[in-house]
Amino acid sequence: MRHTHLSTTARLEAFSDGVIAVIITIMVLELKVPHQDGIAGLYAVIPTLAIYAVSFAFTGIYWINHHHLVHRTEEADELVLYANLFFLFCLSLLPFLTSYVLEKKMDSFSVALYTSSMVFTGFSFLLLRLAIARRLRLAGKLEIQDTSVQHKHLYSLLTYLVAIPVAFYHPHLALGLCAFVTIIWITPTAGVKPREEDAPFPRP
Amino acid sequence: MRHTHLSTTARLEAFSDGVIAVIITIMVLELKVPHQDGIAGLYAVIPTLAIYAVSFAFTGIYWINHHHLVHRTEEADELVLYANLFFLFCLSLLPFLTSYVLEKKMDSFSVALYTSSMVFTGFSFLLLRLAIARRLRLAGKLEIQDTSVQHKHLYSLLTYLVAIPVAFYHPHLALGLCAFVTIIWITPTAGVKPREEDAPFPRP
Amino acid sequence: MRHTHLSTTARLEAFSDGVIAVIITIMVLELKVPHQDGIAGLYAVIPTLAIYAVSFAFTGIYWINHHHLVHRTEEADELVLYANLFFLFCLSLLPFLTSYVLEKKMDSFSVALYTSSMVFTGFSFLLLRLAIARRLRLAGKLEIQDTSVQHKHLYSLLTYLVAIPVAFYHPHLALGLCAFVTIIWITPTAGVKPREEDAPFPRP
Amino acid sequence: MRHTHLSTTARLEAFSDGVIAVIITIMVLELKVPHQDGIAGLYAVIPTLAIYAVSFAFTGIYWINHHHLVHRTEEADELVLYANLFFLFCLSLLPFLTSYVLEKKMDSFSVALYTSSMVFTGFSFLLLRLAIARRLRLAGKLEIQDTSVQHKHLYSLLTYLVAIPVAFYHPHLALGLCAFVTIIWITPTAGVKPREEDAPFPRP
Repeated sequence: MRHTHLSTTARLEAFSDGVIAVIITIMVLELKVPHQDGIAGLYAVIPTLAIYAVSFAFTGIYWINHHHLVHRTEEADELVLYANLFFLFCLSLLPFLTSYVLEKKMDSFSVALYTSSMVFTGFSFLLLRLAIARRLRLAGKLEIQDTSVQHKHLYSLLTYLVAIPVAFYHPHLALGLCAFVTIIWITPTAGVKPREEDAPFPRP
Repeated sequence: MRHTHLSTTARLEAFSDGVIAVIITIMVLELKVPHQDGIAGLYAVIPTLAIYAVSFAFTGIYWINHHHLVHRTEEADELVLYANLFFLFCLSLLPFLTSYVLEKKMDSFSVALYTSSMVFTGFSFLLLRLAIARRLRLAGKLEIQDTSVQHKHLYSLLTYLVAIPVAFYHPHLALGLCAFVTIIWITPTAGVKPREEDAPFPRP
Repeated sequence: MRHTHLSTTARLEAFSDGVIAVIITIMVLELKVPHQDGIAGLYAVIPTLAIYAVSFAFTGIYWINHHHLVHRTEEADELVLYANLFFLFCLSLLPFLTSYVLEKKMDSFSVALYTSSMVFTGFSFLLLRLAIARRLRLAGKLEIQDTSVQHKHLYSLLTYLVAIPVAFYHPHLALGLCAFVTIIWITPTAGVKPREEDAPFPRP
Repeated sequence: MRHTHLSTTARLEAFSDGVIAVIITIMVLELKVPHQDGIAGLYAVIPTLAIYAVSFAFTGIYWINHHHLVHRTEEADELVLYANLFFLFCLSLLPFLTSYVLEKKMDSFSVALYTSSMVFTGFSFLLLRLAIARRLRLAGKLEIQDTSVQHKHLYSLLTYLVAIPVAFYHPHLALGLCAFVTIIWITPTAGVKPREEDAPFPRP
């Protein structure tokens, strides 16, 4: 009876995967077929495709980080479940804000809103990280400090914070900064690649 | 051949997770980009965002409760499967009723309908609870009585029942009551927190 | 190297659950908020809700049957995978045909088309059943003959076949026949209930 | 601490299944109910249904291949996760390009775009294949060379490449070539069927 409220993370992962899978995919419904025929239509749709790609990458990178974060703990308490729901809520606003930016033709305010939501989602992810750290502490486990990933989080957050004021002067540059964050994440960190290659045997 | 119709709850959980994940996420498609530019657009969209947040929290809390409820049994019979389908059907009306409230600009009738659906969904969840209790009884297992959660269910239901007549006099107050239910759930119950902290060892 | 093309059914189930979860839920997007205010709006939306309920029940019952069918085999070959895809394709037309019936205001042709699709989906489910029977045979396992479920399939199919010509004379009656099929499935078969209650011990 | 960045493929599969399930199903939202009543409406909708069927088959075949590909490795590194995201991104454009072809009434440019996206998605799948091959190499495992599947990939890619210029002269023929690729995949390869039937015992 004691641990009624603790549950394995299996279903938390399954539900989060489902929600993130829907978020990442329904954004494609915002892509509207252009009125122009031929190559002109393709040109017209390129900015839309570019923002869709940024939002897709943003969501995908969060999925990978969520994956690593939840992997650390084997059980979730109520606080972790609610922090996870709050994170998913913030992330679920992304398709809305993506279409906001598109319908407002990337004006300053809509791009600032889009960038602010990225800061906000980062903040909700930090809350989830803290809730999981608390759970690990209560379970008497050591929290893994993955400094290279934490640095990436910090740099991303700083870039988004810089992008907000930039949006009011040069919205395209602000979107470019958001796209640049993707490159931070895809770039392998110095420590990761060697760690794998000199691994004497694969993890079972 | 005897227990052909019994099945593990693994796939019941997976399917329910999928349906709830789609329900919780497609509501974001109801969020329409406002016509106004700049900060005025953001103001115009705030009531919409608030109702979306209430519906998201409502669905999310049901997911957590569904999670705990189904976790109690290891196998599902036909009755559990159909009760689960009926619960998912009731829950699936939420995106429709959320857009109902939004398009009717939160008039009394739409808010009363929205609140009634919350009572109705609560009723279908009770049926699922009874079907699972019957399964546990047939399997010779004791049903866990989690009184703090049952009290929360009772208070939620009473709040929704009060919100229905309130909707006809003051629809915004009725929606506020619905939002208040979320707080009931997020608040840790007196018994939960200590139970975890004095746990001598984590559950395997 | 021999059985490269055989795979466990775990991912087949996960993918099918995902597709069926999306099918069953996106139908709610077809529910349009009525123009009328107050109770008149609710009356106007009732036929729509009724057809949504029939389509939801139809999809849900297929999910339960799919669940039981796939459960019989532990591995899937290419034929099972393709038969499963074909079944999902037929089922995925249901949201389209549901909105077809709704937009055509339940005229004879649209209802006949809707009913035909139910026959067609039943046929694709039969193909999946045969593909799985072949797999079990190749694996040297006996196929379980669940006659009560097979009778339900037969009665359902016959009801749908009767409903097609009926649609041209009385479309509402044809839809009523489709709704009636749901009752066939929900009704516990004579053999099922006792089997559970006199079970000496629960299946591990 | 060494292999923090390696993770099992379970959640990669779950997430990919979710995304592919949504992609394959939301395409049905593009099917619009025709204005014509009766059989004329059905005739009007047949080309749409045909393209939907091609896109569904295309996505479904990728799901099967993804299933087999990811099955080879037990763990995924960052490169595999990002290559997988890129593949899902390419695949997620399919619903958009399907509606592109439909709204442009299958004109040459839209069909060429649709066919090009199939080549592009094939290319992203090749990258995922290479990322998984690298992972297997780092883990000291032998890569399975499934030549019959690799030949099918090659023939598919060649057919799509031929279909692009064909689209500018005869768009319907180009779509027919895309549909033909489905047949390549469904056709059992010479080596597969016997392999199963002379299997002395089923794989555990």
